[in-house]
Amino acid sequence: MAKIVTFGEAMIRLAPPHFQRLEQARSLDVEVGGAELNTSVALARLGHQVSWVSRLPDNPLGQVILNRSREAGVDTTQVQLVNDGRCGLYFLEFGAAPRSSSIMYDRQESSFARVNRDDFHWLNILNGASWFHVSGITPALSNGAEAATALALQTARMLNIPTSIDLNYRSKLWTPQDAGRVMSELLTFCDTLFATENDALQLFDIRGNSFAEVAGELIERFGLKQVVGVKRETPLVWRNRFGAVGYADGSYQETPWYDVEIVDRLGAGDALAAGVIHGLLQGNFTQGLEFGAALGALKHSIPGDLPYINMADIEAVLSGHGLRIQR
Amino acid sequence: MAKIVTFGEAMIRLAPPHFQRLEQARSLDVEVGGAELNTSVALARLGHQVSWVSRLPDNPLGQVILNRSREAGVDTTQVQLVNDGRCGLYFLEFGAAPRSSSIMYDRQESSFARVNRDDFHWLNILNGASWFHVSGITPALSNGAEAATALALQTARMLNIPTSIDLNYRSKLWTPQDAGRVMSELLTFCDTLFATENDALQLFDIRGNSFAEVAGELIERFGLKQVVGVKRETPLVWRNRFGAVGYADGSYQETPWYDVEIVDRLGAGDALAAGVIHGLLQGNFTQGLEFGAALGALKHSIPGDLPYINMADIEAVLSGHGLRIQR
Amino acid sequence: MAKIVTFGEAMIRLAPPHFQRLEQARSLDVEVGGAELNTSVALARLGHQVSWVSRLPDNPLGQVILNRSREAGVDTTQVQLVNDGRCGLYFLEFGAAPRSSSIMYDRQESSFARVNRDDFHWLNILNGASWFHVSGITPALSNGAEAATALALQTARMLNIPTSIDLNYRSKLWTPQDAGRVMSELLTFCDTLFATENDALQLFDIRGNSFAEVAGELIERFGLKQVVGVKRETPLVWRNRFGAVGYADGSYQETPWYDVEIVDRLGAGDALAAGVIHGLLQGNFTQGLEFGAALGALKHSIPGDLPYINMADIEAVLSGHGLRIQR
Amino acid sequence: MAKIVTFGEAMIRLAPPHFQRLEQARSLDVEVGGAELNTSVALARLGHQVSWVSRLPDNPLGQVILNRSREAGVDTTQVQLVNDGRCGLYFLEFGAAPRSSSIMYDRQESSFARVNRDDFHWLNILNGASWFHVSGITPALSNGAEAATALALQTARMLNIPTSIDLNYRSKLWTPQDAGRVMSELLTFCDTLFATENDALQLFDIRGNSFAEVAGELIERFGLKQVVGVKRETPLVWRNRFGAVGYADGSYQETPWYDVEIVDRLGAGDALAAGVIHGLLQGNFTQGLEFGAALGALKHSIPGDLPYINMADIEAVLSGHGLRIQR
Amino acid sequence: MAKIVTFGEAMIRLAPPHFQRLEQARSLDVEVGGAELNTSVALARLGHQVSWVSRLPDNPLGQVILNRSREAGVDTTQVQLVNDGRCGLYFLEFGAAPRSSSIMYDRQESSFARVNRDDFHWLNILNGASWFHVSGITPALSNGAEAATALALQTARMLNIPTSIDLNYRSKLWTPQDAGRVMSELLTFCDTLFATENDALQLFDIRGNSFAEVAGELIERFGLKQVVGVKRETPLVWRNRFGAVGYADGSYQETPWYDVEIVDRLGAGDALAAGVIHGLLQGNFTQGLEFGAALGALKHSIPGDLPYINMADIEAVLSGHGLRIQR
Amino acid sequence: MAKIVTFGEAMIRLAPPHFQRLEQARSLDVEVGGAELNTSVALARLGHQVSWVSRLPDNPLGQVILNRSREAGVDTTQVQLVNDGRCGLYFLEFGAAPRSSSIMYDRQESSFARVNRDDFHWLNILNGASWFHVSGITPALSNGAEAATALALQTARMLNIPTSIDLNYRSKLWTPQDAGRVMSELLTFCDTLFATENDALQLFDIRGNSFAEVAGELIERFGLKQVVGVKRETPLVWRNRFGAVGYADGSYQETPWYDVEIVDRLGAGDALAAGVIHGLLQGNFTQGLEFGAALGALKHSIPGDLPYINMADIEAVLSGHGLRIQR
Repeated sequence: MAKIVTFGEAMIRLAPPHFQRLEQARSLDVEVGGAELNTSVALARLGHQVSWVSRLPDNPLGQVILNRSREAGVDTTQVQLVNDGRCGLYFLEFGAAPRSSSIMYDRQESSFARVNRDDFHWLNILNGASWFHVSGITPALSNGAEAATALALQTARMLNIPTSIDLNYRSKLWTPQDAGRVMSELLTFCDTLFATENDALQLFDIRGNSFAEVAGELIERFGLKQVVGVKRETPLVWRNRFGAVGYADGSYQETPWYDVEIVDRLGAGDALAAGVIHGLLQGNFTQGLEFGAALGALKHSIPGDLPYINMADIEAVLSGHGLRIQR
Repeated sequence: MAKIVTFGEAMIRLAPPHFQRLEQARSLDVEVGGAELNTSVALARLGHQVSWVSRLPDNPLGQVILNRSREAGVDTTQVQLVNDGRCGLYFLEFGAAPRSSSIMYDRQESSFARVNRDDFHWLNILNGASWFHVSGITPALSNGAEAATALALQTARMLNIPTSIDLNYRSKLWTPQDAGRVMSELLTFCDTLFATENDALQLFDIRGNSFAEVAGELIERFGLKQVVGVKRETPLVWRNRFGAVGYADGSYQETPWYDVEIVDRLGAGDALAAGVIHGLLQGNFTQGLEFGAALGALKHSIPGDLPYINMADIEAVLSGHGLRIQR
Repeated sequence: MAKIVTFGEAMIRLAPPHFQRLEQARSLDVEVGGAELNTSVALARLGHQVSWVSRLPDNPLGQVILNRSREAGVDTTQVQLVNDGRCGLYFLEFGAAPRSSSIMYDRQESSFARVNRDDFHWLNILNGASWFHVSGITPALSNGAEAATALALQTARMLNIPTSIDLNYRSKLWTPQDAGRVMSELLTFCDTLFATENDALQLFDIRGNSFAEVAGELIERFGLKQVVGVKRETPLVWRNRFGAVGYADGSYQETPWYDVEIVDRLGAGDALAAGVIHGLLQGNFTQGLEFGAALGALKHSIPGDLPYINMADIEAVLSGHGLRIQR
Repeated sequence: MAKIVTFGEAMIRLAPPHFQRLEQARSLDVEVGGAELNTSVALARLGHQVSWVSRLPDNPLGQVILNRSREAGVDTTQVQLVNDGRCGLYFLEFGAAPRSSSIMYDRQESSFARVNRDDFHWLNILNGASWFHVSGITPALSNGAEAATALALQTARMLNIPTSIDLNYRSKLWTPQDAGRVMSELLTFCDTLFATENDALQLFDIRGNSFAEVAGELIERFGLKQVVGVKRETPLVWRNRFGAVGYADGSYQETPWYDVEIVDRLGAGDALAAGVIHGLLQGNFTQGLEFGAALGALKHSIPGDLPYINMADIEAVLSGHGLRIQR
Repeated sequence: MAKIVTFGEAMIRLAPPHFQRLEQARSLDVEVGGAELNTSVALARLGHQVSWVSRLPDNPLGQVILNRSREAGVDTTQVQLVNDGRCGLYFLEFGAAPRSSSIMYDRQESSFARVNRDDFHWLNILNGASWFHVSGITPALSNGAEAATALALQTARMLNIPTSIDLNYRSKLWTPQDAGRVMSELLTFCDTLFATENDALQLFDIRGNSFAEVAGELIERFGLKQVVGVKRETPLVWRNRFGAVGYADGSYQETPWYDVEIVDRLGAGDALAAGVIHGLLQGNFTQGLEFGAALGALKHSIPGDLPYINMADIEAVLSGHGLRIQR
Repeated sequence: MAKIVTFGEAMIRLAPPHFQRLEQARSLDVEVGGAELNTSVALARLGHQVSWVSRLPDNPLGQVILNRSREAGVDTTQVQLVNDGRCGLYFLEFGAAPRSSSIMYDRQESSFARVNRDDFHWLNILNGASWFHVSGITPALSNGAEAATALALQTARMLNIPTSIDLNYRSKLWTPQDAGRVMSELLTFCDTLFATENDALQLFDIRGNSFAEVAGELIERFGLKQVVGVKRETPLVWRNRFGAVGYADGSYQETPWYDVEIVDRLGAGDALAAGVIHGLLQGNFTQGLEFGAALGALKHSIPGDLPYINMADIEAVLSGHGLRIQR
């Protein structure tokens, strides 16, 4: 399998059990998550050697994230434990219709956000890698994070390593203007983009009548190879419909819809990205979309952000095995 | 915001977790609830100063109810801690289709039921109040409770304070005949009535082809200003449809239906009442129904009887924000 | 009520809470289950005197199974506690669409599997009994278990005690060939068979256009009195549709479908069997199917394998009481 | 082994976890307990056939007590499930020095307290029994309970069945005067008495310089065979010293002290009684004290009131096996 | 009872259950605590009207602190909910010998620390108060907090309101030099000081052969009325010895030692302060020390920082009631 | 730091919470443990690169062990996931005086026990290693395991890699005769032995008046370099005294005693071994004993078998920091 490098922050996630409001909480369940880490875990479980590059405080909270990444099979040798900044946290409330789930971030002054442009030696880190992946959250965290992201992408391009970016625009981190300006630069070093039509509109003022149209425009403007999106319907909080859409080589394709019963909605998009990367590493974009849709759909059934999913699970979904109990 | 007074019993609620039968229980979750207390909490969270008038045993169980009422923002200075009677309890089993949820009461000889007609000094308590609310459960608990309720309502009327009664007929507490007789008297002091068509039939032998017809008859018979009801469909235990209906000034109105995923069905009607009262205090019955429907629908998503709901939650529902995760 | 005898293994069931994968588990919920034990519990709760015949290791795990059987009202005086073999275990993962629930067995070398043909004195045990029930899992466990099952069935036939077999083919325990050969012999001592069309096809190469056709063929081939099956639709993991089908005296009948919200799907078929046996003991096959469908549907709502169901629950379902909360 | 009959109430016990005050409780652990039931369980686990005679409400709470008694191996065929009265409850707070543990009862109007003198057919129930045991709590519960207790003791005496009474004076249930009067009568039908020096003083105005002196006086006054007491030191809440003392045939004896680490102090005295009865049934009072002290000491280590203790545990304690982990 | 005002920060406390390291945590128990809030709760439960003055973020975490303060009976009308800064957190690991318990703070940039000198209108707040209490943690949090503390103390002195300061030096917040300089100024407005000999040495370079000597020097230097200290022995983590020492009017006194079994050691000093203040408000320093020692000792037995202690608990301790279970 | 190789089985540990007997269990806490794995984790946390060599079933239970080893920082690349055999389990009951803790194994037919002599390529595995460690449990598991252990030790000796063996005699796995015979052979390839006087007596018939005498005899007979033992006093279950003793170069030494409050006694000896190895790798046996005693003592305070201990914890213990809370 391939060596894959990802770059981004992970946080401790704290959520009250059983649909409690935070106000009611007497205990909080502890999970860890972060866009690139989530993707890394999915890829590691498919057999790849995945090096997640990050920065964590050298304290028990940072250690929790390090430990769980290792538990999930991710290579953490490029994670720096530093005495600079705190551990990012986020608080999650699980909802039920008509109350949606919601997230409150407490990530200011994190060790990751305090990264400097040159804290990582990308030439060494990317040496021998077959893929580099990052999300749009990473450069949003600070100027240093933006600079480090740019350096990583440039180095990857220089080494002819395929790259992917999950646009993942977060309005609480930066304005559409700032995001548009920064991501426009970064996308010039990108091969595969994960994006929604809405983000394309907000960040790049690209509008179209369809995902295909928007994706085509993105590919043209930034010199991408393919664009991948999520399709999702949310009639309820505990039940959605989910699938993947993609555009490459001038043609649009989409997977079937999956009915998903939602145990934990977080990380579905990150799992989807892992499936697409896995497919592309095998040279098969169509299969990548299928893997991605299956991984993303399955992620909804698993507590926490990390996708504890095996290839056997994916195959069961793709083969239409049905939903009877497996004995 | 307004000063609001409510009067009624609250109980400790004990429920086994995760859909267990009581027979299977090894632990019981502890909540507190009571029709008027639930309504009080919803109103307090909307910014009103709500004085819940009640009677509790001066022991740790009574203290639990007192503490949690205070936690939820309710003024408990008119709650009497007495060495007379026990703390009412109720046991709840959460169901799943085709097994409905069910409640077993253990509330005999409670401190509240032992109340005497003159235990509360209503002239003082209601001084400066803008609203008085009570449910039909309160007078059902004992002769003393009935007398105290009557005195409260009469005093409110005397002071020109608007009053509301939630009919809330409970067949385990009294017969339709007794309930009909007592409530007929009390309703002559009532402005806003919360009632179902079925209760109107059982208690007052009022029948009609529609909520409007029944409500019109209730208004006429008892000199009410408006009647409010709940509309609910129960295709499953974990998923209902819910909304509010109202009749005032000769015209019927209803809110849209809400699909609700049910974490905890208890207290939905009490939350609805709070929304209506909130609207009426602003002179807007239509908005009251909307607030009430949103509050009632949201309550299904929150564990416990007490409605941990904010105005922001209501606005999100009323503005049709959708059910995607809020980041 | 009647004396009923059943024969089979029970295991400790270990399942992570809240839809976790086993890999994520930090604690496992402990339940006990076994096809015949589950059926025994349902029958005991309907008022029958049910003697479950089994074999358990004389250690705390065996004791857990013994204790809980007793708790549920089953007569365990014919359960042998032995110093031979271990306690069977099974691990359960609860799923959510598109991930189905799944079971991993760890039951090798169990005390029950080490049973010998003559370990039980069936003449004594069956003395005075009105029914004998066993599943196809029991003979699959070992040669000794097969021989003991045959002896039990032969003795019951000799004593003119009605017998039932739940075919329950488990591909992890034996091949269709072995199962077909053994069950063909055992079925000659059977009156009431619980079976699916698919099992009939795999084990006996019986195929037909309908349950009725297959059941008719089974009755003819093995000299049965009636055949009962389950009908189930699985559009989702948390919600199924469920009912009973039956064939006797040349005619087919089926119950209505029940929408079931699934707390715990295990043991539904075993509960259904209990309902049918209860009906047949009263000489009413149609009512047996109705009882069975109600019991099976209700079982989905109860955590664990053991059906904590009362006749009042069944009556509520059969009378179409609806799904509102019962106060 | 012997057939033993006991008579008394059992209650549901509700206790907050981890040393919380009741005021802090968000969940309560559910156990069942009652002096005679606790003793019954200990005796059943030593191999006796123990029939616990009681009265419970026919609702899920009564069923919990019935189920768990059965689980623990007690014969419950003489427990009446009635539609009369409620289920007794008690609330327990676990303490830590300098805060002692404390109990709040909520047992008024229980089904047991509503027993009538003739509700049980003692001639049948005691037929073939080798022992009858009751505590002083039972007659304290109501006049009916007192009358039924008297009838039971008289019947036992008439049938020459040895009897034991655990004095167990509870000041919350009756005055020393009432207790003294009633117990004085009942003790004339008693062979073995469990009592403390303090209770002897309060109830019977018997005072002495030693347990032996007091016991001698009790034996003389009431015509007893032997008197057994507990010795206990309570330097801390989590650690006590515990043992048994006895007086019979004019001579005093005592067991060694046991250091006990306290998981759950409830039921220690009841377990001690079981050990003494077990010894006396084998004709060996000295051994009875030893068994009793070991059972009582072991009970402190086990959560809940019911003594999940085996003969192997007792033997380990009596043989001085030490406190190293047993592999 | 008296009106008492306190001023300080409170934080959310997150602690893994059952002696886990933070690294092992899968869930965290949620408590709230803060030196002055803890003291306020103890005083409120003794019947005083206690206004805790503070500043919290207007988000669910701030709301948790507000709610629980209210639940515990504290007046929170002077707590400002602001959109400025985050909610302070602290993480607690419970230890066992030879591993001590430990705390990791995550309180930077809290709403409280961002307080400005003039955010509170002390003349209004202190109007009618009988006592003002603050700890040395409050001025350590920021320059604004220091200024606000000074203003509060000056206003109290101006209004002739007795004041107390708990020195509570925290080396993670400031240097001994800074603390010494600031506290020297603040202590000139203080009547009652809670301090340890070690803090006196570090901050003020005061050394003596005994608590009395050091206290005398503190009184002289800062014009105090009395100085109170804690005496504590820590032979183990789960068991300490605890008591109070005091110096006033030239004479030293101390309470007896209490053996404490430690459920939760946090807040013991704050509870002690409350007892002393309670005694001083009644004009009895000696009794204040006794109350303080009892409250502090009892606090060790209660989970969380907030002292859920009643006067009855204190009286039981002071009267030497012993450690037997209270029925 | 050094590369260290260990070889042995790990099991899933299942234990009921809060001192429950297994019979009472409704849930079981899941930990993983194994003598060599435990030692590996302690060494990895001290900074060494530790390769744990083992064999696990390729199923979710095996995966749990693999994941948690990785989480704890152990290199698992030499762990074989096989479709042969089951996952070893053990069930643990936590005791309280006078009931000792106890373990029930369910490890027959484990994947590890089915190992063959040549399943591991020791030349490769040990290449570059500075230490090899194994316990006497490993060869006890099967003939294959014995052969593989011998091969590993021989290879280490051949490569001049220092070796250690923890004798760890388990009477449930083999007889003293078998153990004595096998271990006598293996010890000829051993440098550092961990052993108790009692094991030396049982296995090798070596008796002496002191640890030193026995150790000297062991060194002489098997050509060892040093022998290390545990000293432990068990006055209670929750509190022991613990330390290390050692003999090398003809001289005996011991560490001070540590009072330990016992959260989880498992793995203390394995942690001690890690400390000794760490010291010996630095060429300092005395320091190794000190590290070992501190690690072993600290392990008692940490839930689970795996020693979540840092060098900072060890240093705190060795420096006598006391047991006050660390802020």
